[in-house]
Amino acid sequence: MEKLKQIYEGKAKKVYSTKDENLVIVSYKDQATALNGKKVGTIKGKGKINNKLTNHFMKILEKEGIPTQFVEEISETETIVKKVEIIPLEVIIRNFAAGSFSKRYGVKEGTKFENPCFEFSLKDDSLNDPLINCSHVLALKIATKEELNTIKNYSFKINEILKEHLLQYNIKLIDFKLEFGKTKEGKIILADEISPDTCRFRDEKTNEVLDKDRFRKDMLNENYGYEETYSRILKN
Amino acid sequence: MEKLKQIYEGKAKKVYSTKDENLVIVSYKDQATALNGKKVGTIKGKGKINNKLTNHFMKILEKEGIPTQFVEEISETETIVKKVEIIPLEVIIRNFAAGSFSKRYGVKEGTKFENPCFEFSLKDDSLNDPLINCSHVLALKIATKEELNTIKNYSFKINEILKEHLLQYNIKLIDFKLEFGKTKEGKIILADEISPDTCRFRDEKTNEVLDKDRFRKDMLNENYGYEETYSRILKN
Repeated sequence: MEKLKQIYEGKAKKVYSTKDENLVIVSYKDQATALNGKKVGTIKGKGKINNKLTNHFMKILEKEGIPTQFVEEISETETIVKKVEIIPLEVIIRNFAAGSFSKRYGVKEGTKFENPCFEFSLKDDSLNDPLINCSHVLALKIATKEELNTIKNYSFKINEILKEHLLQYNIKLIDFKLEFGKTKEGKIILADEISPDTCRFRDEKTNEVLDKDRFRKDMLNENYGYEETYSRILKN
Repeated sequence: MEKLKQIYEGKAKKVYSTKDENLVIVSYKDQATALNGKKVGTIKGKGKINNKLTNHFMKILEKEGIPTQFVEEISETETIVKKVEIIPLEVIIRNFAAGSFSKRYGVKEGTKFENPCFEFSLKDDSLNDPLINCSHVLALKIATKEELNTIKNYSFKINEILKEHLLQYNIKLIDFKLEFGKTKEGKIILADEISPDTCRFRDEKTNEVLDKDRFRKDMLNENYGYEETYSRILKN
């Protein structure tokens, strides 16, 4: 299957149409952005690692009953996925306080929650992806109550599956972002990526940063998180 | 009953202890603040109007089955209320888009919602009262699930009662903020005030601004909203 026309370019991915109107090809870039696009850079090899890690996680989730967008990996950085209309919400599941949560509520980074908590952000760069609650989502008709429940249930289940899976590799899942899409038939499926760009990974024992926080926080070896996560999970 | 000792001073009210440990006296000030305290001024007569309007609304709500803090008005600006521990959440109910909602989500002011929507803010001036969702409230142990449900149910019921009541006076209820408190026995009751400081009131036909937005937006006659609302509701 070949790329026909580029139909979208985001911060970390391009999407191409194919001759099958229900399928598109995602191409992962090495470009990295942070702080709502204020910091831009390149992390060599990130595109390949994110492509491969995302596909690995998608396959595991699919097996556990989560419908996903994944169809077939066709190159180091490219994958065929089901075409969906992205629901303009970022779902964030948090097992520990970090990042924007810690800043917003004055809670120490690393504070463990008794139960995972979730939040939605409205996907809108011009508004800086603001936090949005379920009542707002319904009022603005972004999703129905049933769709929200489906998304929430999938997200918490994904958290349990990923948390357990990652612990095998001594990786602690601090928090992560998910996006969902709707197929032509109106079915909600997991879309986008699951990678060190969209998850906070820490070494279980040392709390070493294994994700994009190295880039966000101007730490040394920006690509170390990507490479280390990749090698622990996929090179064994 | 007499004021013993000032135990709290907020932006618009002072609270005094009394010889009854279950009761306090609230004293309403003419001081007005906006934009999270960045704008400070005085609106002559506001203390009296907010005291009298709050007590008027509290009595109506109490009759309709909402437990409130109200006990007895003892002067133009002072009222005896039940002592509570304030739950550090501001509940905002919105019938129309306005203010921070419009800015946050890029929605035109005045857009009507099919169903009223609600949100919580964490009461914390140092954090600028950030928006907080129910999942966060539970994770941070600010309230239990049962308490949140009680607060939500009361808030929507209060909206229906106030909306209908205000329409008699040709006042449209755009949105409003509520606070709840817990009594020594753990019962959740409506606390704080219901006034042009905490509600957006508009003339039903002309959309004339009848609330603190005149002060927030540097409009002429900052006190007009207070006086007009007061005279429509309490001087008839």
